[in-house]
Amino acid sequence: MTKRIDFQVDPSAYKHWKVTYDGPVAELFMDVDENGGLFEGYQLKMNSYDLGVDIELADVVQRMRFEHPEVKVVVMKSAKDRIFCAGANIRMLGGAAHSHKVNFCKFTNETRNTFEAAEADSGQKYVAAVKGACAGGGYELALACNHIFLTDDSTSAVSLPEVPLLAVLPGTGGLTRVTDKRKVRRDRADIFCSTEEGVRGKRAQEWNLVDEVISNATFDATVAERVAQMAAQSSKPDVEKGITLTPLDRTFGEDGSVTYSSVEATVDRAARKATITIHGPKADAPADMDAFTAEGAQAYMLRLARELDDAILHLRLNEMELGLWVIRTQGDPEVFAAHEALLLENADHWLANEVLKYWKRVLKRVDVTSRSLVALVEHGSCFTGILAELLFAVDRSYMMEDEFEGDNRPVATVTLTDANFGPMPMGNDLTRLETRFLGTPEMVEKAKGAKGQALEAEEADELGLVTMILDDIDWEDEIRIFMEERASFSPDAMTGMEANLRFAGPETMETRIFGRLTAWQNWIFNRPNAVGKDGALQRYGTGVRGDYNMERV
Amino acid sequence: MTKRIDFQVDPSAYKHWKVTYDGPVAELFMDVDENGGLFEGYQLKMNSYDLGVDIELADVVQRMRFEHPEVKVVVMKSAKDRIFCAGANIRMLGGAAHSHKVNFCKFTNETRNTFEAAEADSGQKYVAAVKGACAGGGYELALACNHIFLTDDSTSAVSLPEVPLLAVLPGTGGLTRVTDKRKVRRDRADIFCSTEEGVRGKRAQEWNLVDEVISNATFDATVAERVAQMAAQSSKPDVEKGITLTPLDRTFGEDGSVTYSSVEATVDRAARKATITIHGPKADAPADMDAFTAEGAQAYMLRLARELDDAILHLRLNEMELGLWVIRTQGDPEVFAAHEALLLENADHWLANEVLKYWKRVLKRVDVTSRSLVALVEHGSCFTGILAELLFAVDRSYMMEDEFEGDNRPVATVTLTDANFGPMPMGNDLTRLETRFLGTPEMVEKAKGAKGQALEAEEADELGLVTMILDDIDWEDEIRIFMEERASFSPDAMTGMEANLRFAGPETMETRIFGRLTAWQNWIFNRPNAVGKDGALQRYGTGVRGDYNMERV
Repeated sequence: MTKRIDFQVDPSAYKHWKVTYDGPVAELFMDVDENGGLFEGYQLKMNSYDLGVDIELADVVQRMRFEHPEVKVVVMKSAKDRIFCAGANIRMLGGAAHSHKVNFCKFTNETRNTFEAAEADSGQKYVAAVKGACAGGGYELALACNHIFLTDDSTSAVSLPEVPLLAVLPGTGGLTRVTDKRKVRRDRADIFCSTEEGVRGKRAQEWNLVDEVISNATFDATVAERVAQMAAQSSKPDVEKGITLTPLDRTFGEDGSVTYSSVEATVDRAARKATITIHGPKADAPADMDAFTAEGAQAYMLRLARELDDAILHLRLNEMELGLWVIRTQGDPEVFAAHEALLLENADHWLANEVLKYWKRVLKRVDVTSRSLVALVEHGSCFTGILAELLFAVDRSYMMEDEFEGDNRPVATVTLTDANFGPMPMGNDLTRLETRFLGTPEMVEKAKGAKGQALEAEEADELGLVTMILDDIDWEDEIRIFMEERASFSPDAMTGMEANLRFAGPETMETRIFGRLTAWQNWIFNRPNAVGKDGALQRYGTGVRGDYNMERV
Repeated sequence: MTKRIDFQVDPSAYKHWKVTYDGPVAELFMDVDENGGLFEGYQLKMNSYDLGVDIELADVVQRMRFEHPEVKVVVMKSAKDRIFCAGANIRMLGGAAHSHKVNFCKFTNETRNTFEAAEADSGQKYVAAVKGACAGGGYELALACNHIFLTDDSTSAVSLPEVPLLAVLPGTGGLTRVTDKRKVRRDRADIFCSTEEGVRGKRAQEWNLVDEVISNATFDATVAERVAQMAAQSSKPDVEKGITLTPLDRTFGEDGSVTYSSVEATVDRAARKATITIHGPKADAPADMDAFTAEGAQAYMLRLARELDDAILHLRLNEMELGLWVIRTQGDPEVFAAHEALLLENADHWLANEVLKYWKRVLKRVDVTSRSLVALVEHGSCFTGILAELLFAVDRSYMMEDEFEGDNRPVATVTLTDANFGPMPMGNDLTRLETRFLGTPEMVEKAKGAKGQALEAEEADELGLVTMILDDIDWEDEIRIFMEERASFSPDAMTGMEANLRFAGPETMETRIFGRLTAWQNWIFNRPNAVGKDGALQRYGTGVRGDYNMERV
């Protein structure tokens, strides 16, 4: 699996999904091309999926928000007979490296979360209309929808057969959504998750595994009627016309680097390091949201979010040995603040809302990236507002103090804006500053008092906004030593440590999925009972069960 | 590591700890006997510990509550020079099986939690007076204390060197307590947890890694003074005299079974199953708390808790292939209720409080036991109050419905008492019924309405208190099929599934330690970078670093 995985896709090239639009209702049909797998060696039978299917799905959800703001309800269906979705492809999983499995699950989890975010952030509701078998990752797709219709016939059931069949856990939040979203009684959840054939009909509704069970004969009509009701009752404001997400301006280098209009990611393979440089806006902010809308996907704040998002995914999935990401910015802090302010001041404009909520997702993607993250606040940088959030997302930040010899860029500053105090919450539902100052909440208030000021190193340090400030004498050595040391540590220990240190404070369904559930899944993905040569994943389809070491750990 | 690990120990036989008592203050000295390891193959140098050291520590904490209720502050110190505690013994960890590592960490975690529970539940405060190196598990011992004094000299530092030195995570809650108990700023936590030598002096206090840094010259005097203040200000009621925790009445069978006065654990090795039978009280409840106190450790409610606790630990650590625990009770529900009522009605009596809080700990131990747990509510059983909590702790429960042919025991019932509605919270701080009915809180109210009634199968089922009710015709087959199926599943998948299904609802530091942190640690404990032949644990002490696969997962 060494070819470059591309996260950009055009709807005209979709292999696995079809979307139809009818005013406020869109129908999203899963119709996986069994010969359209991202890699060799497996067929995507029975609407099973691999990362390629999910990349298209993520694109659908993203375009629904920006290109189809008129849509209030998205109905997820299968275009195939007798099968809704069989879940992640088992042969693909069986053949994939541990790191690919884990990264695959992370991306699919992020995509499932966008279903829920679409309703929470934008009023766009996802519902599942399930006919036929809805198993494993298939049921997890339905679980990510905020309403599940299930037809009542002998072949239609929802199930999570991973544990009994494959000796692994459902990989995209299934257990967590069963207990925490649908709040299924735990002993029923225990039965459900250990029963290969799943649960159907009335019992599925009684146990709250689905919301409505509808007889097969009236299923389509009833779903259509209920969906029309939902659309009519939706609180999503009417928007006539979306914008088009045009292809990114992007060039890959042969060394794995990538350059966009405002983002550059360079690679230092010997140092196992990627450097992401974000450039501030070249032009002034649009005059108003009409002007912004006219710019569409070229508007700086949207363009930058898309580019950064793509760069993150590229480095995550294609460059797994680059264990350290260095994040830099260069640009005019005031001009950036003006671009951001247009959105914050017009947060009730549909497109401003979409762009801000997209930034929220991109920043969350940074939070759960299992790489050591460091930000360098250099002279000439523009860590302002949303970009300053990056300082609170990374594991450490270093800031230049006072002038550096021979460096005539404007002295390094950090500027807080309203973006740092609410609109960009982490998965734990706190702002990054609230999480940072969990033990000293008065520091959040102090930071708020400094809003709008271009804070130089000493002030930023006093406010606790950066990890360390360094002058001309110490800068180079300190940073070099840190980077060399970091690159020498065990990547696994780093992953575990960072996953535990980044999310203090309250937990949500989201932090549980990325924290607890993922960690258990990763553990199981390393155990011979699942992945060994006689384990369940390898033996799947042979008719012979996995050969298990029965010791309980 | 096949000899039977015994969790019972008498203070006269302590090898590793010394305790001195002076009215409201006890001093607890760690003085590990380096040749007193539980197993062969390692020396416990520099106050490093293995499970044997921790078994004694758990005994100290337990006896402090029951035998020394006059103690208000426990000061933890080292009896050795220049070293507080070096943490878990690395050679022991390097040589231990994965399952032993994990079980070792679980038990030590439970013991650390009892430090905090002692103050929260009983007003008995643990403080650490740290002189010398306090590293890894040593600092985690200090973190579990509710106040940390650190002496200010060149050799005294607190550190968590696991990540840089050993490529594993701190195993007893270190990361979680740093972020969630001490609320250390995350970038400082990142530096702290990746710096081998740790942090000392003023910086340790500034970063909130310790509470007070005191100059070496005045350390002992200042600590004594501050501890005397704490004791004087303690809200713990004065109690003149404790009771003695006499040795358990206990017989082990050759097959791994164990019999106590009120608990039996039998072993069916072929079915990979242990059956734990709890017997109700043989005599009437003591007339009052004076009578209860006179009975001391022989009082049924305390005796039963101790026996059940010991049985759980025995089966957990010594019988790792018994993946299914069947929990039964037999006895008179009303007599049990009378014994329990004496405690609940006198919850402000110190000993009643201690016994109830001990039950809270025992039930939590059930919650985090990584075995499939099933309760059988048979005729003649006494699932009442605290024992009914077991029904809500297990993964599934089955209840006999109506009379069974040839069975003349009283028909199966379940009785709820006040114990089910508050005093026995889970680690998530909800009651087990609140967790069970997270999605239907009205069911908790309904259950409350049925308090005190002996509920037969149909009523218990309607109230959602049991998983399934079965009559004479179905009982045997259904239970047999369930048990056979359960025993056939991958133990790892079961562990992961149960860990995720058991704790719906809010998270606490405790659920995080057992959920998220433990899962990441288990994952790392399976990775070649830590445990492979060229991994950090194996190479520790050779002067050569671990050879790491640098791929990030």
